[in-house]
Amino acid sequence: MNEFDLIRQYFTRPAPSAVLGVGDDAAILRPTPGQDLHVSVDMLVEGRHFFADVSPQALGHKTLAVNLSDMAAMGAKPRWAFLSLAMPRLDEAWARDFSRGLFALAGQHGVELAGGDTTRGPLTLSITIMGETPQGKALRRDAAQVGDDVWVSGELGLGAIAVAVRNGQLVDAGLSEDVLAACQCKLDFPLPRLELGQALLGVARAAADVSDGLLADLGHILTASGVAAEIRADSLPSLPPLEAQRERWLDYLAAGGDDYELCFTAPQAAREAVAAAGKAAGCRVTRIGHIVAGSGVRLLDGQGAVMTLNKAGYDHFA
Amino acid sequence: MNEFDLIRQYFTRPAPSAVLGVGDDAAILRPTPGQDLHVSVDMLVEGRHFFADVSPQALGHKTLAVNLSDMAAMGAKPRWAFLSLAMPRLDEAWARDFSRGLFALAGQHGVELAGGDTTRGPLTLSITIMGETPQGKALRRDAAQVGDDVWVSGELGLGAIAVAVRNGQLVDAGLSEDVLAACQCKLDFPLPRLELGQALLGVARAAADVSDGLLADLGHILTASGVAAEIRADSLPSLPPLEAQRERWLDYLAAGGDDYELCFTAPQAAREAVAAAGKAAGCRVTRIGHIVAGSGVRLLDGQGAVMTLNKAGYDHFA
Repeated sequence: MNEFDLIRQYFTRPAPSAVLGVGDDAAILRPTPGQDLHVSVDMLVEGRHFFADVSPQALGHKTLAVNLSDMAAMGAKPRWAFLSLAMPRLDEAWARDFSRGLFALAGQHGVELAGGDTTRGPLTLSITIMGETPQGKALRRDAAQVGDDVWVSGELGLGAIAVAVRNGQLVDAGLSEDVLAACQCKLDFPLPRLELGQALLGVARAAADVSDGLLADLGHILTASGVAAEIRADSLPSLPPLEAQRERWLDYLAAGGDDYELCFTAPQAAREAVAAAGKAAGCRVTRIGHIVAGSGVRLLDGQGAVMTLNKAGYDHFA
Repeated sequence: MNEFDLIRQYFTRPAPSAVLGVGDDAAILRPTPGQDLHVSVDMLVEGRHFFADVSPQALGHKTLAVNLSDMAAMGAKPRWAFLSLAMPRLDEAWARDFSRGLFALAGQHGVELAGGDTTRGPLTLSITIMGETPQGKALRRDAAQVGDDVWVSGELGLGAIAVAVRNGQLVDAGLSEDVLAACQCKLDFPLPRLELGQALLGVARAAADVSDGLLADLGHILTASGVAAEIRADSLPSLPPLEAQRERWLDYLAAGGDDYELCFTAPQAAREAVAAAGKAAGCRVTRIGHIVAGSGVRLLDGQGAVMTLNKAGYDHFA
């Protein structure tokens, strides 16, 4: 099996909405007239974004999931993906399992793999994802306004706990097998909040996905919008056993990466609409604070005093 | 300087034709109504696609150039690029020089860098390029017809000679300093044939760019079109000193990679139009053979006898 056989067998599936899919110098697409086209790329490197022993199927899922999460954060409906894949050797079993994980998630969301590139090198994956929203309706980072509520979807901290357990930094976690399994599942098979993102169009104002940690990603919204936020530490949502010990897990909840939840702002008048969007998307949504004038984010305890964290957001070069 | 400073300082330039450029979860683009959108990705890995000691500026040029070459092969006008960059450490001088090379070429062709991703890892570069053609007018690989002429742009073999010299596989090349410098320049600063590709819309039928070697890339056209080709070895264009010893350099001309020329087919009735397109694009175009029924490519000597090569096309995993 050579490079071209591998592409044909494992990475070529029908892409009926593309004019021309895998196999030419470029794919040819016809975006929907009147829609804005959203494009994002995310690269995953072995040892940094995933462990060397992760299952190829989980990796196929996760590589696409982290890209779909960017579409979710814009409120976009994803349509096409392009895959750049460097691998140390032509490993057919790996490619088969990786492509299964990728296409299983792609199929769930109607995403077509329309092209890509394969080469030899240290295991590195880069996906370009393309999606659409009605023109001018996207959830941009620069749209937060003073007085908005700050919301977050799902549960925080699980991905970071799984990483810490794997790294041996969290030896005596005192967490049940069930909780640890849920954390591991969140790390390996994150679910991009696509339904929620699309349901929030016209309801929320600004949004970002939580990949580097809640406070860091919220910080991007604040910087882009020229505003500040106050977040109540005791409101951060997680699994019940973690919520029961919020103080112990605060670093993970507030600053842990790898959650792929959505953090967003919405006018106070939209509280019922946000709750309805969460319900429609089958996804918990929690109000965790509000936007104020100024800059930066303040994490407050139950008495309204400012708290400090041990962890900051994730910087790939720190 | 952290990751975000680096992106801001070296990879954020105005992208006036994007609704939203670098800095959000995704870029927002509005492709031109009535145009087809072309998308391609190409990944470059250190030690495979470039030498570790190549200048960062040349690498910035080449990373974009090989992607623009895919747009050229479709006849597309390139518009937006997205960069995924993994580097071993945050090296500001490297990033500055790399971005200079990248933006110099981007500026020449009106291409905007609209987004990307930066992470730590073995030096790996992946660009997604997006361009446009009028609907249904692209130069696809599957459009060659029996009776078409086969053409190639520019000069062949230079990139492969430069690689062989650098690898020590070609010690006593007997080539002048001038010729060797021209080969090195072609390897480091390939010029994508964008003007030619666009000038060939409505003139040529099928096209591909020559990245893996003329016969290999022509082979992709033949397979996609269900036809065969006969190529005259003594017609393959190169620099005069190489043409003067075609037999010695035949492997390089016919099967050497890294040329980024265009190989295309056109009806015999279009010979004058092809010549005019070459002239308009300031680019040599040479007729090297023709399309026949059957499959595969036959390289013929001056007497019409079939020749065999020592080299085959490039397979990243061979």
